[in-house]
Amino acid sequence: MDIFIEPIGRLINQFSRLPGVGKKTAQRYAYKIISMTDAEAKEFAESITECKRRVKYCKICGNFTEEEICEVCKRRDKSVICVVKEPKDVVAMEKLHEYKGVYHVLHGVISPMDGIGPDDIRIKELLSRIDGSVQEVIMATNPDVEGEATAMYIARLLKPLGVNVTRLAHGIPVGGELEYTDEVTLSRALSERKKI
Amino acid sequence: MDIFIEPIGRLINQFSRLPGVGKKTAQRYAYKIISMTDAEAKEFAESITECKRRVKYCKICGNFTEEEICEVCKRRDKSVICVVKEPKDVVAMEKLHEYKGVYHVLHGVISPMDGIGPDDIRIKELLSRIDGSVQEVIMATNPDVEGEATAMYIARLLKPLGVNVTRLAHGIPVGGELEYTDEVTLSRALSERKKI
Repeated sequence: MDIFIEPIGRLINQFSRLPGVGKKTAQRYAYKIISMTDAEAKEFAESITECKRRVKYCKICGNFTEEEICEVCKRRDKSVICVVKEPKDVVAMEKLHEYKGVYHVLHGVISPMDGIGPDDIRIKELLSRIDGSVQEVIMATNPDVEGEATAMYIARLLKPLGVNVTRLAHGIPVGGELEYTDEVTLSRALSERKKI
Repeated sequence: MDIFIEPIGRLINQFSRLPGVGKKTAQRYAYKIISMTDAEAKEFAESITECKRRVKYCKICGNFTEEEICEVCKRRDKSVICVVKEPKDVVAMEKLHEYKGVYHVLHGVISPMDGIGPDDIRIKELLSRIDGSVQEVIMATNPDVEGEATAMYIARLLKPLGVNVTRLAHGIPVGGELEYTDEVTLSRALSERKKI
């Protein structure tokens, strides 16, 4: 006899597919679902299908939207484009409530090791957005090997088009300590030091 | 403008209801759902409603089952009843593949602080199961204040009925070290020492 009856085992398997969720955590989640009222469980299930059904990708920037074109692309300053790897990076930027430009979500970064080349991410779409009105493209891919390489690759394509390409600054995190800062970061913080 | 569009925000709220899941984790889960195929998301949602619809409580032991009476109650040795707090404790016991008796799930423990009295958990149902055929009741509630109190309370009710009441042994965990064993546990391990 299985330890779990079939519908519980199935639900545990489904929860195990979520990132970072093992069998034990999935089991706790499944028990939580069973302890919900019918209405609550139904609402939970519906929010999954609804989300999947309603969320599309913006035709311009590639971020999540319910319409053809997202609210950011519709309303904001199109002279600055911030290029990010994934939609969650847009969320990180938006939390600042500081950036007033638009975005371009690549949906990945160039990674030869994983067989992901320039044609597999939304670089063509970015190039097609560059016209006279775009003054700056901020490369905000992650500061890891793939992110840096992707930023450099795109920068090289954009420069001949006469657009300013910038990159987020590297350095010591605010509130961080020199002692615990890794050498590469500290070295970048030194070489990119600023006059005060 | 909200950082998340409505269907994503709603799904994040739903995932946040799971135990130990904060906004950030819920967000990762929501993105995972969006990255699934339609069929996968549908399967996920259905496993929730199906689980909720099909899983009931066994009329005898109170554990999860799809029928009136669970497989354990139907097939196993009814002369020994193991009393646990929650269905997940049954899973912990079943993983041993050692215990051959049946269970009784209390669905809680007596906890005056939380206003949970003896009538709020399945004690009456346990008493009604005690007949001449039951030889032993193993109290396997957690070794915390409420678990101990509940075990003692039930033991006092059962003893006049002429049934053996036992409690899981306390002591040093296997593989544990004396140095790191808390004093209460060590004291119990000493007082309950056994001849070898």
